Amino acid sequence: MTDTFDSTDAVRSGSPLRHLQTVVFDAPFKMRLGGELPGVVCAYETYGSLNGDASNAVLVCHAISGDSHVARHDPDDEPGWWDTLVGPGKAIDTDTHFVICANVLGGCRGSTGPGSIDPKTHKPYGPGFPDVSVEDMVDVQAKLLDHLGVKKLAGVIGGSLGGHQAMVWATRFPDRVAACCALATSTRLTSQALAFDVVARNAIQTDPDFHAGQYYDKPTKPNTGLAIARMLGHITYLSSKGMAERFDIDRHEPRQLDTDFESKFSVGSYLAHQGQRFVGRFDANSYVTLSMAMDLIDLGQTHDQRVERFSPATCRWLVLSFSSDWLFLPSQSREVVAALTARDQAVTYAELRTQSGHDGFLIDSDVQRFGPLVRATIGPDPEVDPSEGAQAQALSLIDRRIVELIKPGESVLDLGCGGGRLLSALRERSAGRLCGVEVKERSIVATAQRGLPVLDYDLNKGLPEFSDDSFDVVVLSATLQAIDHIDTLFDEMLRVGKRCVVSFANFAYRELRDMYAKQGRSPKAKGEYSYDWYDTPNRRFPSIADVQDLLTAKGATIHQGIYLNTHEGKIISDDHDPNLNADTAVLVISREG
Amino acid sequence: MTDTFDSTDAVRSGSPLRHLQTVVFDAPFKMRLGGELPGVVCAYETYGSLNGDASNAVLVCHAISGDSHVARHDPDDEPGWWDTLVGPGKAIDTDTHFVICANVLGGCRGSTGPGSIDPKTHKPYGPGFPDVSVEDMVDVQAKLLDHLGVKKLAGVIGGSLGGHQAMVWATRFPDRVAACCALATSTRLTSQALAFDVVARNAIQTDPDFHAGQYYDKPTKPNTGLAIARMLGHITYLSSKGMAERFDIDRHEPRQLDTDFESKFSVGSYLAHQGQRFVGRFDANSYVTLSMAMDLIDLGQTHDQRVERFSPATCRWLVLSFSSDWLFLPSQSREVVAALTARDQAVTYAELRTQSGHDGFLIDSDVQRFGPLVRATIGPDPEVDPSEGAQAQALSLIDRRIVELIKPGESVLDLGCGGGRLLSALRERSAGRLCGVEVKERSIVATAQRGLPVLDYDLNKGLPEFSDDSFDVVVLSATLQAIDHIDTLFDEMLRVGKRCVVSFANFAYRELRDMYAKQGRSPKAKGEYSYDWYDTPNRRFPSIADVQDLLTAKGATIHQGIYLNTHEGKIISDDHDPNLNADTAVLVISREG
Repeated sequence: MTDTFDSTDAVRSGSPLRHLQTVVFDAPFKMRLGGELPGVVCAYETYGSLNGDASNAVLVCHAISGDSHVARHDPDDEPGWWDTLVGPGKAIDTDTHFVICANVLGGCRGSTGPGSIDPKTHKPYGPGFPDVSVEDMVDVQAKLLDHLGVKKLAGVIGGSLGGHQAMVWATRFPDRVAACCALATSTRLTSQALAFDVVARNAIQTDPDFHAGQYYDKPTKPNTGLAIARMLGHITYLSSKGMAERFDIDRHEPRQLDTDFESKFSVGSYLAHQGQRFVGRFDANSYVTLSMAMDLIDLGQTHDQRVERFSPATCRWLVLSFSSDWLFLPSQSREVVAALTARDQAVTYAELRTQSGHDGFLIDSDVQRFGPLVRATIGPDPEVDPSEGAQAQALSLIDRRIVELIKPGESVLDLGCGGGRLLSALRERSAGRLCGVEVKERSIVATAQRGLPVLDYDLNKGLPEFSDDSFDVVVLSATLQAIDHIDTLFDEMLRVGKRCVVSFANFAYRELRDMYAKQGRSPKAKGEYSYDWYDTPNRRFPSIADVQDLLTAKGATIHQGIYLNTHEGKIISDDHDPNLNADTAVLVISREG
Repeated sequence: MTDTFDSTDAVRSGSPLRHLQTVVFDAPFKMRLGGELPGVVCAYETYGSLNGDASNAVLVCHAISGDSHVARHDPDDEPGWWDTLVGPGKAIDTDTHFVICANVLGGCRGSTGPGSIDPKTHKPYGPGFPDVSVEDMVDVQAKLLDHLGVKKLAGVIGGSLGGHQAMVWATRFPDRVAACCALATSTRLTSQALAFDVVARNAIQTDPDFHAGQYYDKPTKPNTGLAIARMLGHITYLSSKGMAERFDIDRHEPRQLDTDFESKFSVGSYLAHQGQRFVGRFDANSYVTLSMAMDLIDLGQTHDQRVERFSPATCRWLVLSFSSDWLFLPSQSREVVAALTARDQAVTYAELRTQSGHDGFLIDSDVQRFGPLVRATIGPDPEVDPSEGAQAQALSLIDRRIVELIKPGESVLDLGCGGGRLLSALRERSAGRLCGVEVKERSIVATAQRGLPVLDYDLNKGLPEFSDDSFDVVVLSATLQAIDHIDTLFDEMLRVGKRCVVSFANFAYRELRDMYAKQGRSPKAKGEYSYDWYDTPNRRFPSIADVQDLLTAKGATIHQGIYLNTHEGKIISDDHDPNLNADTAVLVISREG
């Protein structure tokens, strides 16, 4: 049972923070939802040093129960909630970056919140604290940056509510953000997530010790309601499979706890422990305020609204989701990506396959996996795998042909981009905007580490919503045979690309044909068709003529066809029956003539 | 907003039930978890009439918040919670069946529960009420059946906690159950579902009005905690997509309610409404007692334990899950199915594709879809689609050959059974045990309506855990080409069947070969290969020789090969190159020689 009590929610005990700094902004602070504060205190911590031109600052935004202590300041310091990501030599490298993390407005760890003293009444604001929006949190952070002399952030990053702040930063202050990393977040909550928040607030606000929020001078606090809210939150942060792994085996062996809560089952004792631990360091009014801020965040309900809302942003983006996160769904992250791609913004997207649930953005093993993506986004220098670098120039014969078909300066979308070699080669020839689409995590990381945007999209399930003609060239190289809905994908390629380049292995190549016709066996050959019939990942087995027929049937124009016999290293001319003699074709096509 | 306040939880107002009957069992009642009651009252309702040999009784078991009022007794009666399923002419037909539904032990709608008077103290039991198990609930129902003169049930059915009762009935009293329908249930709760119950009980038991369960003589009841528990339950009964459909659009337009709970969002006002409505008709101690009974149900954590636990059962089974149910997962229903198939029990399984979540077993539109499966399981006479019946004899040439290869009396598993025609034809020749596997809902229903067990399993994702050699013959007819993992499936077939019969289209048939070899185009032909290369559902394109090679490689023996040219309606002998001249092959194989 010991491991089940490790904290996965990235918060520490309630002890004072040695490195906490505060700044007081005296001017009245107008809030987005109508309230006003006479002044605002912002509590924050910083790591590393601001460089001469103030260009190395990274703002880290915390989630609902986090605080400014994102990392240790030294080995003796208390653990931070993102120690795996932030520190000397880490993905967010405090040797090169100046990292800032502030407790949010409305919180209870030093910044102004419901528990702060209202200078007018000399009592805590309590229920009189105005409604806080994520925009207000960001506005206070902007004041902090002014105070610190930071005009533009090298990066802003956050998960969950921290991700909301990061997205608001990038869209509200586009001139101040060079890169934005939004993890495990969304433009608005699902109704299910909202419903959990409502129940949590009901538990707090109906606690008799809540006293309509004026409990600060009372001997007892609404700890029962707050603990129940926290227990509920904890369930939503974990995946069902993750909970099964931790609690199924020893279901009936709870840890012995001194608690008024039920601790009959191991998962019950875990929840009681988490609930009780939380009330020691968190204020119920702050929880209500911050969860309401989350519930009210709205960066667009429809695609069009999201496109509009994200259009001011000019930064590089990293959007990250976690496959088992059911509080903030991967589909919600894909909505953000679609809003960005619709306006041609540079975005890298990855969905980490993990059982960590929403907590994935905080769990060490997951952080280690996505850290390189954060580093590649924020800079300054991604750690490139040397073996990938060495292979960068080793383009295949076919990819070399494809490069020749693309003019310098043209923008290119590469579907099934692998480790990004083709895109990398194009960049060396001063290409326009480049973007890859890939599904393998290692390839996504490799592409991102080349400094190229890459999207984790399964071409079998569709494409992000790129706008019409948004790339000069869309490339589909050696990928066609694995696509289920190739018909739909062709339509999409022809819509998004002014020109498309498709390379594919010819299933009617002489060697394959002979094997089939003479031996009566499913053909096999080097390359894409080297698999046995019963375990091939290939789904589609077209000849050159088949693909040409389909393209012609859908009204596409085939501008050029290059037919290769890669085994013999030669080009097959049109006169020499490419459908028989070429093992590979490269077609240049477009929607119109 | 009106529709969002329709009840989906299948419970009525708290008004008295006109047709409620009670029976008092005076003898001391020993309980499974150690307690004892001096006597038990059972409240129940019945519908229809018991026939002369008492063979037409169906017991309906209700879920945590349900009661004995499963259906209207007449048009003027209050609605029942399963009116769509139970009534004159319905799937559970009260014109032919005698339907019994009893309020469970531990409940608060007439049967003995924590709110009942303890004859020793003349006060409500309250917290002194002993822990109730599902087995205890079933034991009381067994006494009720004795009282009503019912020795054996034609069927027992229930969803969720009702499903637990049904499964306990079938395994605890196998001689008294002819058919068991277990809907949206599991052998034990997931740790996630358990965690929600823990939080719900914490909300109730920390309500200051709970008074450690002794609140019956107090002016106020623990209604706040109970309402919060109910709100939480409601979220878990709905799917995230279902909630999105209902609440996303008018998120900020709550219904105006007189409530102390938050009603800021539409989903909040819905939850407040549901919570407040619930406390008017339910007792907090009963909720604690019944949710704990669910949390303690354990019909096996491992496959072996489940096989052991289900092995006493002798009835026909229907197991039903709902695709978007995240409280009781479809995978948990498949665990029940695997436990049954491991011991060769007759079971039909279906996973309804629906957005209704756990509530699916109660929602009208879903009930209408699964009603025919219930009727087919419990009897007496399924409503067979006449068009299906007419086609029953129209076996294909290939299927006629397959029938000839199976001896009367042999047991047969048909993978990809369609509407069950082949199995039906085999049954007419006095076959042994028959079972189909199919994925299309309409085909599953059609097969079940023929009175044949059928399992909703995607052959691409694996097979239920049939034991070795559990069928004389396993058939895979005209399905091979759509299977991704055909290699694994062959292994499974050869393990489960003493003999296997595989029929498949030959991709090296002359016509296809010619098209490919001479025209250089992906072959098309009548039958399974009639699709275009870019939209075919087929994944595998083997020739007869390919399949033979694979089978030989895995050490299978090919006992017989029948090669057909179905276009010409003739058999191709071994001398005439079947791999070229036959369009279809039927192979009889086994693991050993």
